[in-house]
Amino acid sequence: MATSTFEIRLGSYFDSVILMHLQRALLDLPGVLDAGVVMATPANLILMAESDLLPTEAQKANPEDLLIVVRAEEEDQATSAIAAIDDLMAKRRSTSAGKFRPRSLEAAFDILPEARFVLISVPGRYAAGLAEQALRGNRHVFLYSDNVSMEEEASLKAMAQERGLLVMGPDCGTAIVQGIGLGFANRVRSGGVGLIGAAGTGLQAVTSRIHQLGAGISHALGTGGRDLKKEIGGVTALQSLDLLKRDSETRVIVMVSKPPDPEVATKLLSAARNTRKPVVVNFIGYSPPARKLGNLHFASNFNEAASLAVDLLGENNQSTAAGATSARQTGNDRRYIRGLFSGGSLASEALLLLQVMFGKIYSNFGGERLGEPTKAREHTLLDLGEDQFTVGRLHPMIDNDLRLRMFRQEAANPEVAFILLDMVLGEGAHIDPAGEFAPVIAEVLRQHAFDVGVILIGTDEDPQDYDHQRQQLLDAGARVFGNVLEAANAIGSLLGGPSESIVTPVDLEDLAAPLAAINVGLEAFYESLEQQGAKVVQVNWRPPAGGNEKLMSILQKMRD
Amino acid sequence: MATSTFEIRLGSYFDSVILMHLQRALLDLPGVLDAGVVMATPANLILMAESDLLPTEAQKANPEDLLIVVRAEEEDQATSAIAAIDDLMAKRRSTSAGKFRPRSLEAAFDILPEARFVLISVPGRYAAGLAEQALRGNRHVFLYSDNVSMEEEASLKAMAQERGLLVMGPDCGTAIVQGIGLGFANRVRSGGVGLIGAAGTGLQAVTSRIHQLGAGISHALGTGGRDLKKEIGGVTALQSLDLLKRDSETRVIVMVSKPPDPEVATKLLSAARNTRKPVVVNFIGYSPPARKLGNLHFASNFNEAASLAVDLLGENNQSTAAGATSARQTGNDRRYIRGLFSGGSLASEALLLLQVMFGKIYSNFGGERLGEPTKAREHTLLDLGEDQFTVGRLHPMIDNDLRLRMFRQEAANPEVAFILLDMVLGEGAHIDPAGEFAPVIAEVLRQHAFDVGVILIGTDEDPQDYDHQRQQLLDAGARVFGNVLEAANAIGSLLGGPSESIVTPVDLEDLAAPLAAINVGLEAFYESLEQQGAKVVQVNWRPPAGGNEKLMSILQKMRD
Repeated sequence: MATSTFEIRLGSYFDSVILMHLQRALLDLPGVLDAGVVMATPANLILMAESDLLPTEAQKANPEDLLIVVRAEEEDQATSAIAAIDDLMAKRRSTSAGKFRPRSLEAAFDILPEARFVLISVPGRYAAGLAEQALRGNRHVFLYSDNVSMEEEASLKAMAQERGLLVMGPDCGTAIVQGIGLGFANRVRSGGVGLIGAAGTGLQAVTSRIHQLGAGISHALGTGGRDLKKEIGGVTALQSLDLLKRDSETRVIVMVSKPPDPEVATKLLSAARNTRKPVVVNFIGYSPPARKLGNLHFASNFNEAASLAVDLLGENNQSTAAGATSARQTGNDRRYIRGLFSGGSLASEALLLLQVMFGKIYSNFGGERLGEPTKAREHTLLDLGEDQFTVGRLHPMIDNDLRLRMFRQEAANPEVAFILLDMVLGEGAHIDPAGEFAPVIAEVLRQHAFDVGVILIGTDEDPQDYDHQRQQLLDAGARVFGNVLEAANAIGSLLGGPSESIVTPVDLEDLAAPLAAINVGLEAFYESLEQQGAKVVQVNWRPPAGGNEKLMSILQKMRD
Repeated sequence: MATSTFEIRLGSYFDSVILMHLQRALLDLPGVLDAGVVMATPANLILMAESDLLPTEAQKANPEDLLIVVRAEEEDQATSAIAAIDDLMAKRRSTSAGKFRPRSLEAAFDILPEARFVLISVPGRYAAGLAEQALRGNRHVFLYSDNVSMEEEASLKAMAQERGLLVMGPDCGTAIVQGIGLGFANRVRSGGVGLIGAAGTGLQAVTSRIHQLGAGISHALGTGGRDLKKEIGGVTALQSLDLLKRDSETRVIVMVSKPPDPEVATKLLSAARNTRKPVVVNFIGYSPPARKLGNLHFASNFNEAASLAVDLLGENNQSTAAGATSARQTGNDRRYIRGLFSGGSLASEALLLLQVMFGKIYSNFGGERLGEPTKAREHTLLDLGEDQFTVGRLHPMIDNDLRLRMFRQEAANPEVAFILLDMVLGEGAHIDPAGEFAPVIAEVLRQHAFDVGVILIGTDEDPQDYDHQRQQLLDAGARVFGNVLEAANAIGSLLGGPSESIVTPVDLEDLAAPLAAINVGLEAFYESLEQQGAKVVQVNWRPPAGGNEKLMSILQKMRD
């Protein structure tokens, strides 16, 4: 008949690694059937209960308490297992003794002044303070700890950005700097792919696959899972893009993350276009409007991101950023796109594509909504087939009057650089749309310095005669596109890339120098760095007041 | 010195085509510089003002009024142009006289009893009533009209579904039935691609491109832009999928639309898997988690959807639905998936893929949220690296204890058919995860009839020895996958497709017979059908009380 015994140790902090080892050591003792050694957080209590390791009386334990439960065949076996805990702890301590370990970050800086990175994996409530210390000491931070608040993250990253330092994290599991893995990282060969990823296993899946495909990694920089949220603004991702842009080892960039906040996505994709290197983008759950848009290549999963990156490495990538460089230099103020669509689906596709390239797009059907549907502003796409335009009026695929009027208006607007039209041929539609538009296009192109593009949809059997429609438009001076993607790419080349984003640059040398680091927290990370040949110092960190929350709050009050 | 004159005709209805022709006729009169003939809706008033065609006094016109404005060089030219309106109207009427035109739908049914389709393009406020008449007359409806309410659409489609009839629309611009285009449609050759699309230009772009690529169309069915919203539930799309599934001409199906409501998306993708034909899906702005998942192929724009469809036509498509047919027939109740992940990004990718295949997935990080993170239900994926599990506990990539416990628990659950694990090797991670899991996997597989799959991420240089890890898992009886997509496809084959969706089938003969139709509204559609060789009757429709809203409401009150 099995029996359970437990012990609660009030308010003391233990390293999770020590707890795991204690639990395993208990399981090896005679008669022990199961054992749990955990901090008594609500989640852990539930999990203990599900393993039948939570006697009723043990439920009173608090989150800062250590809970030890042993189930054994006989009661005396359980009792003596619990009694063995202190011995086991002492044993564990003696095996980890050896090398000198400073007790503070400052002391570690003195021992290893060349360390440019501090790895922090202490419990979340202590992590932000340590990260701030590291930044003040002019070190980059790899912040593995989770349970760090959004506010703390924002303020740490703002501080880091000002000083040209990176905060990778919080909740950042993985990075590879100059071939050395920080945290969890696969061993991969060096090569031309530089990566930026939010959390961890995404980066691991892609870097592993790139290695399996025979290529290699320059650097893989982690940002933490919340970096692309509005509150943070993608600080670390933008810094990382800027770094990889300047890094000559990196020939192809891969960005992996969950879908960013829309505003942050715009900044990020602008910055990605600005790198003038091929960038593979895989935002999990984000809808790419095309496989390729300028130098941006969209993948729909990790495996594909890796394959794309390796393919791009093989290609001559000098020309890939051409779109961004051939921007027009007309010297005038004409810089906005106006789209006057008759087809709603074509307008939607154009909206998605142009948003990626130019960020904010106004419209009467999606993106940024116009207050008044006829008052275009900045980049605007209008679907003139929407209900608001078709009450008591024919559809713009039959009657060109409204579009022609608006076309003339927009052409006269000194801010408009490109007017995009669609023209949908076929049954039911106007019998000669190009014939109506061509003279007007020719006329306004003589008057104003801007461009006109037409997406022409139809077949050689359509009653309007596709080729004749096309020729009329070309003769009038319009560009003619066969689909929306073609049009978007052409507009991207003509109007050029977005303006440069401003981040305080991080010193490239910090990535290039042989890796030296300071580790605070999980010993596994220290051991792994040492095995990889990096210089590393482990800080013998203990929480203030031994992790006793009550004592800590008294100490804090005495200081206030 | 130009001058403007206007006239307001109170509360009378005019066909938009007539208005367009009147406006054009006015422009041809001597001295006329510009003219507008529109129903005085708010949007039209704004547009008239922007064309400098809205004298202050004309602003008082109401939406049901006809507004005529003429700007001419001389005042008398403007005045005589306005005076010519009635003559122009009479002229227009006389040219359209000729063939006998019934005044009601019922009369049209008598003239052309074989007509299976009624095209409706009258103003929105009259459209729902006519559509209902058509359904009562046992005819399919092609509803071009917009400005039809969501409630009307829902009730029309419910009525249609019961009777095995289609309501294509409202706001449906395009369909192709047996080679004949309804509404706006391109002339394309006949062939093996069947399409379902929301609105119009999406279908036109894809069908045109398929034709350009040398292939052809069986049928293209429009659903209206709101069919995939929750309120409507995708009725028409589901009916159409069922039709194209049974249609032997259709060898590949293409579905084009804006992103559906999530619930509707699940039903739709289930139905698409059930067709056992290759289905190309292009939901604009929807994030496909893979290029291919079973018989589903995801495209990111219209052009790509067309290319994919044509490629698939060329392939032997007997095998493409194999996944759905090889479903297990174990005869037990084990039917749910449980995922126990250490990697958050891998878990996210798995969630997206499995949602497409199985609909609702519970998790502690996305999809349907679990109330308590340890209480799995139905299909559940857990990310054990989430904050809630890692307070006072090592990350599951270092410490397998929690995952092993949960694995045993789930294996013992008689509802669980597949347990999916990830195993991420590399620096920092557990030195032999497979070594810890393999004996437990072997043990539970001996006890219970279910499957275990492991997504193994790592490289040949990782300290854990990739091949050895893999071999231990295989020896234990687990399936080993190199990435998430591979795992999802395998689970899809094992657990089989979703259950059949229930729609009242539409008679295939209605699509196969030579097209005969009744047209109410835009004459352009009548003319186009006639030119295409279809049998068609135009209804000489006039709104009740000549479109005078006041009179109509008095008539209505007298009836109540």
